[in-house]
Amino acid sequence: MSPLASALVNEHLHDETLVNRKLSNQKESGPSVSGDKRQDHYPSRVYLSPTHIDRQDPIIYSHDRQKAPLDEALLDHYEKNGFLFLDHLFDDDEVLAMQHHMQSLRDSDEIKQREESITEASSGDIRSVFDVHKLDAFIQGVAEDPRLVKIAEYLLGDRVYLHQTRLNYKPGFRGKEFYWHSDFETWHVEDGMPRMRALSMSITLTPNDHNNGPLLLIPGSHHTYVSCVGETPDKNYLSSLKKQNVGVPDDTSLEALIASSGIEAAIGQPGRVILFDCNVLHASNGNITPAPRSNLFFVYNALSNRVDLPFGNTAPRPEFIASRELIRAL
Amino acid sequence: MSPLASALVNEHLHDETLVNRKLSNQKESGPSVSGDKRQDHYPSRVYLSPTHIDRQDPIIYSHDRQKAPLDEALLDHYEKNGFLFLDHLFDDDEVLAMQHHMQSLRDSDEIKQREESITEASSGDIRSVFDVHKLDAFIQGVAEDPRLVKIAEYLLGDRVYLHQTRLNYKPGFRGKEFYWHSDFETWHVEDGMPRMRALSMSITLTPNDHNNGPLLLIPGSHHTYVSCVGETPDKNYLSSLKKQNVGVPDDTSLEALIASSGIEAAIGQPGRVILFDCNVLHASNGNITPAPRSNLFFVYNALSNRVDLPFGNTAPRPEFIASRELIRAL
Repeated sequence: MSPLASALVNEHLHDETLVNRKLSNQKESGPSVSGDKRQDHYPSRVYLSPTHIDRQDPIIYSHDRQKAPLDEALLDHYEKNGFLFLDHLFDDDEVLAMQHHMQSLRDSDEIKQREESITEASSGDIRSVFDVHKLDAFIQGVAEDPRLVKIAEYLLGDRVYLHQTRLNYKPGFRGKEFYWHSDFETWHVEDGMPRMRALSMSITLTPNDHNNGPLLLIPGSHHTYVSCVGETPDKNYLSSLKKQNVGVPDDTSLEALIASSGIEAAIGQPGRVILFDCNVLHASNGNITPAPRSNLFFVYNALSNRVDLPFGNTAPRPEFIASRELIRAL
Repeated sequence: MSPLASALVNEHLHDETLVNRKLSNQKESGPSVSGDKRQDHYPSRVYLSPTHIDRQDPIIYSHDRQKAPLDEALLDHYEKNGFLFLDHLFDDDEVLAMQHHMQSLRDSDEIKQREESITEASSGDIRSVFDVHKLDAFIQGVAEDPRLVKIAEYLLGDRVYLHQTRLNYKPGFRGKEFYWHSDFETWHVEDGMPRMRALSMSITLTPNDHNNGPLLLIPGSHHTYVSCVGETPDKNYLSSLKKQNVGVPDDTSLEALIASSGIEAAIGQPGRVILFDCNVLHASNGNITPAPRSNLFFVYNALSNRVDLPFGNTAPRPEFIASRELIRAL
């Protein structure tokens, strides 16, 4: 348990029954998996007030640094902060090609009408396209590029598969903010991802500066799991992909975590890979500048960490948001 | 007419009749003032599409730089960019006292209930207190401090009075953005301020960094008047003080102005005075960090530039938003 949370947690001991009830529900209705695997190490949306749980999983699963695809300093930075910015993995031509494919997808009427596309109600413009690696063979090649996959395999100490992929596009002038959250909290509660053994890579396709709503990360926040308050509504993903209302950390937790290590903005040029642990708290501000923001977003999960029934007892989210059946090791 | 707008304006020549009709309406219903003074040099919310008008007024009205309360480099910066950051006008004790008075006003139930206070619907928390110099004698002293007044007098080349004062408070976590606008556009259309001969001073009372929604300014935008599209609804101020829907520059104008000189963020420590011309385009992003933003905001107008009936033919806004009757030269 992180020190900053001990006071908080002491207040909730009386809530334990809630978790026990929840866990026993899961056991009754859950699939036949080994009891230990289905133990909920990271309960969330079950306590009556916010609770912190110390991370119970490694951050870097491999130990032989001689074999690492990243140098010592980068590994130390990732271990400590929970994220890394890698600026020269792809060359200019590759980035140009990614931008070209991003634009083709955004312009495609056929793509706009697919279930995998999240469009803006007022304009019909594309904001996100899920499962983008299945819709564009070039982007599949990027997601499966050994330069990315080897890093994911090393950090997660396992073979990996794509848990989720998407193209994100935040327009200029009227881009909305996306509030603080841990991806793992959602993947755990709504998708049934058992442990913190996944990571994301976001390849920026537009320049990010301080003003156009760059990704903001809280360094070191991946060490603490903030168990959130609130119940998950049915089909929460239909609204949560635009604006998250549950699985949102409380003000006091955010204040403590940010007071301890601040906020880092992922500003930089197109082609940068932002690599971050599944539990690092992140957000992005709104965008009132003319400059849109776009990125390719790939989530790599360890094969040994495949999702099962959601820990939150809701129906699983669609396959295009969380790969469950159609898994292929990279 | 600014070069970047000439193409735009050529498209609107057929809209001229609209302005003429509007101006003749104003003459019929307007007060008995000299015809020239009531000429509308900066029509807005009358054309059917956005129009740019070259600034027809000086930026610095005084000419004898020997007598200036600011040095040559600062004056040149203000002339060119339309704003200045002054970091050491007030000492630490003075800033502490301002912060103390800010907090007292925010905590006062009596202040919350006043018409001059803009509160948040959900929490009842204060976001702005207008006419703050009339509610707090210490703040009146700050607004009338010779260090500020002499600068305003020099730049505006006249004796000055307080057109508007307020205390602003943007909370952490859920602070909303305020979109791009020229204050003069509103003061002209909704308050009847004839010419660009006013300026604002914002004294920051909290640290401003890139992430907590600092004031953003477009350098050089004060040279161009962006005539906005849209009619002013009755009692527009009741909503526009929270979110401006008319008097908002169009995307193309913003894109051109920002492409030419970028965006400058007014980041800095408490006590900084942000001095800006009435026509410089500015905005502030939302604030999802725990750190609130607060400032004292004073608008100085030249005595010779007193407001008259609004150029937009709407009813004048209340005295606490735009001083009209109760004017006192500083």
